[in-house]
Amino acid sequence: MNSNYPSRVLQDAVEAISSLPGVGSRSALRLALHLLRQPSETIHQFATAVDRLATDVHYCGQCMMVADGDLCSICADGKRDQRTICVVESVRDVMSIEATGQYNGVYHVLGGIISPINGIAPSDLHIKELLARLEEGMEVILALSGDVEGETTSFYIYRQIAGLGVKVTTLARGLGFGDDLEYADALTLGRSIAARQPFKP
Amino acid sequence: MNSNYPSRVLQDAVEAISSLPGVGSRSALRLALHLLRQPSETIHQFATAVDRLATDVHYCGQCMMVADGDLCSICADGKRDQRTICVVESVRDVMSIEATGQYNGVYHVLGGIISPINGIAPSDLHIKELLARLEEGMEVILALSGDVEGETTSFYIYRQIAGLGVKVTTLARGLGFGDDLEYADALTLGRSIAARQPFKP
Repeated sequence: MNSNYPSRVLQDAVEAISSLPGVGSRSALRLALHLLRQPSETIHQFATAVDRLATDVHYCGQCMMVADGDLCSICADGKRDQRTICVVESVRDVMSIEATGQYNGVYHVLGGIISPINGIAPSDLHIKELLARLEEGMEVILALSGDVEGETTSFYIYRQIAGLGVKVTTLARGLGFGDDLEYADALTLGRSIAARQPFKP
Repeated sequence: MNSNYPSRVLQDAVEAISSLPGVGSRSALRLALHLLRQPSETIHQFATAVDRLATDVHYCGQCMMVADGDLCSICADGKRDQRTICVVESVRDVMSIEATGQYNGVYHVLGGIISPINGIAPSDLHIKELLARLEEGMEVILALSGDVEGETTSFYIYRQIAGLGVKVTTLARGLGFGDDLEYADALTLGRSIAARQPFKP
């Protein structure tokens, strides 16, 4: 299917679309032909909406999250607790936590995670900007993933923060609330036993 | 996940991407954030490649296929048999048949299929343009899908062509070449028995 596109323009569009992660060349062709069937105005709106990602997206000067202005809506919100900072890898994590409705502090988006394999060093992340925000008595919640890279990053930040008089916490881990023991994986179950908590009736 | 995008620009991009068929809002967010991590120039190239679908794609004046100029490369190819016309629903079908390397005639792209449910009438398809191409002694291969809509469209075109002195053929159907009987569906197997062919050793 790859060869012999009837049009160079179509081929260019298919190649652009198939550069997206998880989109193969067959899907890309399907999507390109779908777009081609739309009115010119619809195609143009689509292209413009994507193009504006390059030109019109700003980053919050405080938490480094995607924003429309100099400060994101969460940092600008006077009702949020500005002294509790939840450190996450990406914008997606912010959106996931916001969707729970359970958190009233602010965030700090690292923009990645320390990963020697992928060539990502601490200096590539917004760790300096985090340290610059910290004041004595604040709480930092390390809400990074539970894999080796996430734990490495958490530990690195923990070491940087130590001595600043900041409380450092992390997400509770264990069996999912409501989970059946039967379906839990052995690692989670084993760690949940080791990290057992006082029973609160 | 839908509410509370941290940026209107990001939200617009996610909404545009999730308007594509088969792309949900979670995937669209993932793709938008992937694009956002790319250099501005990459995002701009992506948007431009898509935008050109609206402005720079032409249609072959003879077979109605996507083309870069007035005539597609197949219709313009003097080595192709211009008196054998394969009628297909879409550009994708042309690409699939071309990929087999088994066909040396030309095509006619209907741009859809007769479908009362979807409000697609014969006049919405490039059937007039097909009739205008036909000359006595030509062959028309009806290569449409085997469902009700495909067969309706084939029959409609067959009726329009009747009396023009054109040979009308259709794709061979039956068990796939090399298929095992064990895994064939009952409809295909039943029809393949009914439409049995002389054995050629």
